[in-house]
Amino acid sequence: MSSELADVGLIGLAVMGQNLILNMNDKGFKVCAYNRTTSKVDAFLANEAKGTNIIGAHSIQELTSKLKTPRRIILLVKAGQAVDDFIAQLEPHLEKGDIIIDGGNSHYPDSIRRTHELEAKGLLFVGSGVSGGEEGARNGPSLMPGGSDAAWPHIKEIFQKTAAQAEGEPCCDWVGETGSGHYVKMVHNGIEYGDMQLIAEAYDILKRGLDLDESEIADIFTKWNTGVLDSFLIEITRDILKFNDTDGVPMVRKILDKAGQKGTGKWTAIDALDNGMPLTLIGEAVFARCLSAVKDERVRASKLIAGPERQPFQGDKQQFIDDLEQALYASKIISYAQGFMLMREAAKVNSWHLNNAGIAAMWRGGCIIKSVFLSDITGAYRENPDLENLLTAPFFLKALATAQAGWRRVIAQSTLWGIPIPAFTTALSFFDGYRTETLPANLIQAQRDFFGAHTFRVVPGMGNDHLSESEDVHVRWTATSGNVSSSTYNA
Amino acid sequence: MSSELADVGLIGLAVMGQNLILNMNDKGFKVCAYNRTTSKVDAFLANEAKGTNIIGAHSIQELTSKLKTPRRIILLVKAGQAVDDFIAQLEPHLEKGDIIIDGGNSHYPDSIRRTHELEAKGLLFVGSGVSGGEEGARNGPSLMPGGSDAAWPHIKEIFQKTAAQAEGEPCCDWVGETGSGHYVKMVHNGIEYGDMQLIAEAYDILKRGLDLDESEIADIFTKWNTGVLDSFLIEITRDILKFNDTDGVPMVRKILDKAGQKGTGKWTAIDALDNGMPLTLIGEAVFARCLSAVKDERVRASKLIAGPERQPFQGDKQQFIDDLEQALYASKIISYAQGFMLMREAAKVNSWHLNNAGIAAMWRGGCIIKSVFLSDITGAYRENPDLENLLTAPFFLKALATAQAGWRRVIAQSTLWGIPIPAFTTALSFFDGYRTETLPANLIQAQRDFFGAHTFRVVPGMGNDHLSESEDVHVRWTATSGNVSSSTYNA
Repeated sequence: MSSELADVGLIGLAVMGQNLILNMNDKGFKVCAYNRTTSKVDAFLANEAKGTNIIGAHSIQELTSKLKTPRRIILLVKAGQAVDDFIAQLEPHLEKGDIIIDGGNSHYPDSIRRTHELEAKGLLFVGSGVSGGEEGARNGPSLMPGGSDAAWPHIKEIFQKTAAQAEGEPCCDWVGETGSGHYVKMVHNGIEYGDMQLIAEAYDILKRGLDLDESEIADIFTKWNTGVLDSFLIEITRDILKFNDTDGVPMVRKILDKAGQKGTGKWTAIDALDNGMPLTLIGEAVFARCLSAVKDERVRASKLIAGPERQPFQGDKQQFIDDLEQALYASKIISYAQGFMLMREAAKVNSWHLNNAGIAAMWRGGCIIKSVFLSDITGAYRENPDLENLLTAPFFLKALATAQAGWRRVIAQSTLWGIPIPAFTTALSFFDGYRTETLPANLIQAQRDFFGAHTFRVVPGMGNDHLSESEDVHVRWTATSGNVSSSTYNA
Repeated sequence: MSSELADVGLIGLAVMGQNLILNMNDKGFKVCAYNRTTSKVDAFLANEAKGTNIIGAHSIQELTSKLKTPRRIILLVKAGQAVDDFIAQLEPHLEKGDIIIDGGNSHYPDSIRRTHELEAKGLLFVGSGVSGGEEGARNGPSLMPGGSDAAWPHIKEIFQKTAAQAEGEPCCDWVGETGSGHYVKMVHNGIEYGDMQLIAEAYDILKRGLDLDESEIADIFTKWNTGVLDSFLIEITRDILKFNDTDGVPMVRKILDKAGQKGTGKWTAIDALDNGMPLTLIGEAVFARCLSAVKDERVRASKLIAGPERQPFQGDKQQFIDDLEQALYASKIISYAQGFMLMREAAKVNSWHLNNAGIAAMWRGGCIIKSVFLSDITGAYRENPDLENLLTAPFFLKALATAQAGWRRVIAQSTLWGIPIPAFTTALSFFDGYRTETLPANLIQAQRDFFGAHTFRVVPGMGNDHLSESEDVHVRWTATSGNVSSSTYNA
């Protein structure tokens, strides 16, 4: 084997690709770079990669000829057709056991399909979430690889050394089978939406409820960043609030309140609906961005619709701010618990063996949601790998017990103030619903049976000769209602 | 033209089909019935249809030969492939201008496609929502037809006479182009999910908050059914709560609290996410059913997670019950406003000219969500067909102004009690967000620009030489952050 052969190939020299190559080079791996427009290869070698061990290729064939076997080839190209096109171009030049790694923003069903297609041909496929943006790619991203299990031993060292490190461990571990890597990245992005919405609501309460200015709010975030909320997003919120324009006016005042989205939060919410899992917080976070987007309509409405009369805050301000910290923390716990519930369901549906502790560990560094909190989640799953739900882990049971009184006070107060808090409230409703043995869904079942003969199940122990506990039951609610159950009308 | 020719043909003799035929017969129309399993035709004619003017056919060809032109043929078959199969079988026997009407539970994109396909062949297509279940089909459903505009004059009389009547008007009007009929039916079903969830939350508050029993709660619903909440769902809730099993125990206590769903609420929520419209209440209603479904997990959690200590209610009970009525009413207004916002957006995307007043009018009778309230919505849109949003119609502005104090008190109290109210709270958050000129989405935009260089827009009037008001702006938040905006990283 020639010493000049590269450890790994990478296709796609946009900034993400270039940065990941430079990062792998720094960690001691020899990388061969290729790009469809080959002038980009030359420019990269002559500039950013100058003086490194990085080599280049001007064709797919040249790329594959310059790699150690089993070949490891990372694609960092536009999600969709481009990925399939490059796979098709690579195949003729690959041997049994070679590994194609898709590091782009692919939707996980595509990664499931690609794993099966390539394994059928004797090749291995990995779909890896890559989080942290351009800076993460350069200095250490969070990497979430999943796919062909047999690929992991061959890519483990490169991936774990290239990834960010947190608490002495790499922010990269094997996620699971087929599309699980991209799935977990999708949930990560959904959680990011939720975290951002929660911070926005806290900011709004401090600003409009307590009438604090940006500098005062920045001080609160500075303090919060030393406690349970310590995280990248709290940290940058502090920095943003301290950032003034050249005229001394806080920059945030000059930014239009229409939040954009690129769809990955939406994907998560839709996936939750499709899987029947109550991911309410991410759902509300996505919808909150939608509501922000109808700015002109809101401005018109604000002139027409009056809220409650504003009462200046009468209570203990510091106590309320501490309550708010607990409200944010508790809501965040709910959001992550919901995210892990969704992943649990997806694992069941897709026959994945997900590594829950590993997923939390991967998110501790390198990505947007990195936080101290994720160490506690990692700990909870390491302590009990079969943990049914984060909310019932001893650590979080205690955290929620401590938080809940303040959380409720913040919601009650904001409700009376008229400040919208969709994420705080949905989190609490979920908490209260999740810990409720008997929800009012019995009434919904009665209604469905009343108007559509949809049938219901009987509470165990309450059956009798006409209410069977072992089958779907229909009741003749009125003299005119039929005695056949319906299978045609949808409700 | 032979006097024996039928006015309309109907394919599909399940209970819905049979009932709709009998209903049309009662209204003076001659119907020809056909079913793939032709023995069903004979059985129907010999039994349910005996002594009526209904005739039968044993083949598609016979069916089409027995119809007046332009032929009007209603399909009431399983949504999906069966609809396309029957259309393909019908086509060779139809003439230019003949009309195929799909009255099944089709998903609207299919109806859009079918309209285009059939119009290209000189035929007309109508996709009609049919609501009200088997009883509605027999006695007067809510009918929501949309598709080929040219079809409407030929089906109007049959449809409007067959439909339920409310306030002297038919619960049927032309909805709009292509798939709009099935779209409106989908939104109707989503709204139904929301209404049911709101009622369930009110019931839970009365039961667990005020410690009332089923009979006391039934009395409250009885009273509510004479006021602003007067509706079919409130009426059947009253009847359900009064319904005791043979041993005298209220039936509702014996029904398991796991709510089922057949997917149309989910379709609406997913469609809202895809269209970027904040349909939060229906979203929460669907998710609440999902949470109800993990019953075993909830039971285990209920033993582990403690809520707040229960305080007996200290205030004025009747005042609180009146507040609750207002909370339910206000939340319902929000849900319908959200539904109409979604339809407005869908109309834009699909180039439909939706008849808003007509849609509300169609829902006044014959369907699950029929209510007095829908007359007020009809009135609001008739008064101002260009109304931007229901919330800003004079009638609803006033209703919300009256309701909001009680609504807030109910939410604050239930929050402190620990009773989950996801639909009540999301409705209020939407109301407070919708009437807010400046939401905290400016902070979200700052965060996105900070970590991903996603850019933002500047508040009009606050631009300067480095903050352009006419383009996307990126700020160098830190010394190390780049000065190029990102287009690759999704967040």
